[in-house]
Amino acid sequence: MGIEIERKFLVVSDAWRTLGQAVLLRQGYLSSNPDRTVRVRIEGDTGTMTVKGRSEGATRAEWEYAIPVTEAAELLDRLCEQPLIEKYRRRIPVGSHVWEVDEFLGANLGLVVAEIELGAEDEAFERPDWIGAEVTHDRRYFNSSLIRAPYSRW
Amino acid sequence: MGIEIERKFLVVSDAWRTLGQAVLLRQGYLSSNPDRTVRVRIEGDTGTMTVKGRSEGATRAEWEYAIPVTEAAELLDRLCEQPLIEKYRRRIPVGSHVWEVDEFLGANLGLVVAEIELGAEDEAFERPDWIGAEVTHDRRYFNSSLIRAPYSRW
Repeated sequence: MGIEIERKFLVVSDAWRTLGQAVLLRQGYLSSNPDRTVRVRIEGDTGTMTVKGRSEGATRAEWEYAIPVTEAAELLDRLCEQPLIEKYRRRIPVGSHVWEVDEFLGANLGLVVAEIELGAEDEAFERPDWIGAEVTHDRRYFNSSLIRAPYSRW
Repeated sequence: MGIEIERKFLVVSDAWRTLGQAVLLRQGYLSSNPDRTVRVRIEGDTGTMTVKGRSEGATRAEWEYAIPVTEAAELLDRLCEQPLIEKYRRRIPVGSHVWEVDEFLGANLGLVVAEIELGAEDEAFERPDWIGAEVTHDRRYFNSSLIRAPYSRW
């Protein structure tokens, strides 16, 4: 089991666009129950299945397994809750951390969030000027929530 | 993706008890949704995570992954829907097939079912005289159903 401590923010400008290369992430859920989410993701030629427990603050227990990308594609297309989530991710190093900026597609087009993974909930980090309000605790922004209530319908 | 074709029967005597060695299976569900079940199982020192699609007749799509047994134990104890399913399994070769006889414990104590995996829905197989009525299509006997509606409450 790993522990994921992650804070999530909105962005206030497009400055992030030129700071990292966009890679396409395609992901779906075998369980979107917040007590036990099961996510399937394809990034490039890599497939993963990730199990996460309920969030407590910015912290979640996490178990991640590599799976063959062909099987990840089968699970996404045949089994996962629909619609899938598709987004471009840019990884942008700032100080000693890496911001992950996710630009959503499809029914979530227009939504952009920036996440930072920390070693502790109160760990200090550098906040570039394109980072806006924190939404860590707002469940609407959970990827597993965006399936049923996409950004376009907010 | 694998295809699992499995028929399930009740038993009508205790003759199976002496025909195979019992191994303890401990399993739970991260999703018990019949469209996409996600099962975690420990058998001996082996952990597995198994994803199955909706049953069509005796047939289900199946994806199975080995996971570390310590992580399987974490998932069972911390994350899976409760209660877990515990059962003794005996594997009993009969003709060219293997019967798996599951003797349930806990809230399902008293329930015994025998399963046989086939290469096709209409494949012929030898039926020993301790095999009773078929329950393949009775959802009450699905392991994922026995969590919420255990045999003791039927």
